Amino acid sequence: MHTKLLARSDIETILLRVGLDALMDQLIDRLRDGFSKADLAQAQIPARSGLHYTSPDFGLIEWMPANLKQGKASLKIVGYHPTNPAKRGLPTILSTLSFYDTRSGHLMGLLDGTLTTALRTGAMSALATELLGSQRDGLILGLIGCGAQSVTQCHALSRLLPIARIVAHDRNPKAAESLRQRTSFISIPVEPVDHGELTHLLEASDLICTCTSEEPGRGPLFRDFANRPGLHINAVGCDFPGKFELPVELLRRSYVCPDFREQALIEGECQQLRPEEIGEDIATLLRNPAMAHAQRDQLTVFDSTGHAFADYISAMLFLDYATEMQLGAELEVECIPTDPLNPYSILSPAVPSPADANRIQRTAT
Amino acid sequence: MHTKLLARSDIETILLRVGLDALMDQLIDRLRDGFSKADLAQAQIPARSGLHYTSPDFGLIEWMPANLKQGKASLKIVGYHPTNPAKRGLPTILSTLSFYDTRSGHLMGLLDGTLTTALRTGAMSALATELLGSQRDGLILGLIGCGAQSVTQCHALSRLLPIARIVAHDRNPKAAESLRQRTSFISIPVEPVDHGELTHLLEASDLICTCTSEEPGRGPLFRDFANRPGLHINAVGCDFPGKFELPVELLRRSYVCPDFREQALIEGECQQLRPEEIGEDIATLLRNPAMAHAQRDQLTVFDSTGHAFADYISAMLFLDYATEMQLGAELEVECIPTDPLNPYSILSPAVPSPADANRIQRTAT
Repeated sequence: MHTKLLARSDIETILLRVGLDALMDQLIDRLRDGFSKADLAQAQIPARSGLHYTSPDFGLIEWMPANLKQGKASLKIVGYHPTNPAKRGLPTILSTLSFYDTRSGHLMGLLDGTLTTALRTGAMSALATELLGSQRDGLILGLIGCGAQSVTQCHALSRLLPIARIVAHDRNPKAAESLRQRTSFISIPVEPVDHGELTHLLEASDLICTCTSEEPGRGPLFRDFANRPGLHINAVGCDFPGKFELPVELLRRSYVCPDFREQALIEGECQQLRPEEIGEDIATLLRNPAMAHAQRDQLTVFDSTGHAFADYISAMLFLDYATEMQLGAELEVECIPTDPLNPYSILSPAVPSPADANRIQRTAT
Repeated sequence: MHTKLLARSDIETILLRVGLDALMDQLIDRLRDGFSKADLAQAQIPARSGLHYTSPDFGLIEWMPANLKQGKASLKIVGYHPTNPAKRGLPTILSTLSFYDTRSGHLMGLLDGTLTTALRTGAMSALATELLGSQRDGLILGLIGCGAQSVTQCHALSRLLPIARIVAHDRNPKAAESLRQRTSFISIPVEPVDHGELTHLLEASDLICTCTSEEPGRGPLFRDFANRPGLHINAVGCDFPGKFELPVELLRRSYVCPDFREQALIEGECQQLRPEEIGEDIATLLRNPAMAHAQRDQLTVFDSTGHAFADYISAMLFLDYATEMQLGAELEVECIPTDPLNPYSILSPAVPSPADANRIQRTAT
């Protein structure tokens, strides 16, 4: 049995043939549709867990499984190593996605999870903002943290909302400066601001995305502030116990929608809240948009920790494109024997018995 | 950055070039050496967890991570679907192994875990038997459960111990019958016996391996019995909460060595015991063989749930052979962008900006 492998070059081909805007639009549509229709109560999506270490640097390798009970389970393996960009010229997040047949356990496919993570994280913020944020023209998007995730936040939000201007801050001024070039394809002016202008950024924004790599125990990123009416915040960087971006005072006066309640209670902004202070999750709001729209006039927060079902949907999108475009390679990875009761019967019929494997070896030496 | 992929055909080449006996001997040596030298207290090896389901059939997909703090972590993904042989002509266990760089999170390699699981499970039983079992000539090995795992149990034990005869039982008489042919390469007579002769099998054996797929809640496989002096039992099939093979009375009068104490308490025979009834683990005994040898005259049990460090070592063995023989393929899987802060910079330099991806697409349609 074969495993379908998508190479980086296959993903590149898909991006070029589909176009970034059409791809993001497709992904947003599939996520909206998937989350509003799936019976997540019946699915098996345990909160992620993994290996956490501090040597040689602080880092995590985590697994995010999703079994939608439709014959297939996905597993995203995601590495989070914030020293990657400066020390190794690599992105903070490196990831792969694999798929398993839940009848047999067969590895059906393997593809990148790095780009899909960035795409789906942006797309989920866009969906939350569409539900909970102001829809008026000329919106100002405040961006705190201008790393890899910020690019897809800007891109995805620009597809659903009339954003007039982006005000961007990063503790590394070069990252804030380079965002303009990195997001030039969405044609929205970007104004980088330094730490002294952070309060102004917060108070002037209609939408905010926080996507920082703040270390656990160091948050929040800022104190509570006098927000514009109907401000919506996507808190994206919070994904580890003890790691917060937003001040608890702000969360307490907000309607907080988690992407994945159980996980957000462990490692999201929701760590700072009591269960009764937390609103409906994104799947519930996508099924009941009127419930979300009723919150639009007040301060709202989307607590985005990363949902394995969003990974599942994103990977499916790429696999579907790959099938349509006849991309990808097929490789037999698992040693599936001819006789299921004999592991050594992977040896080809040309070798009639395992004894011959020993004999051939003895002859050869 | 590339990921090293070993195909099933590469594993086959390794088996043919090395020979099954030399391969098993190498693996046993590496496991003995690895477990006696590694500082497992410093390693990160969480007890396995996974997706468990009952539809369409009872099945599991579990992940077994091991971070030895030497720059690399392994992750075995193992599917356990007992209906595979009869319904799909596939082995009960299907598995893959992957390796990650713990500095960056990069996926370094992927290879089969199906054969390695069978090999290392056999090899670990052989090591436990070498430590705890009788070493006298003319040993009788009693085998209960004649599936895929039984082949490597027989093979590995035959490499370290003077086994004169194998008496084999399976609730499927055809499996017991076919074991002779499947193990013909080790040249030890195999006598299949039916259920009526089970007590005789148990009472006549110097060594026993239980490697069944008994369903949770159905165990034990047999009642306590009058064992030969110094009997050693490898309990291999026990790997799920509520799944037992051995009767608790037998365990209580045995010296029980778990492969992985925390995991054995959750899903091994050790579920049936209080912590103070459990002996040293296999790593401790391999570091202190005299401690094990002191138990040889009494009834001993190796509670083998499957150790992620054994998977790590087995995979390393195959990767080392592959390097030596220049086998395997290199594939760029992860979408590592040119600019770590810009996920869309995976697009090749021929496409100067993401806007061009949209433009190219618009021109094409």
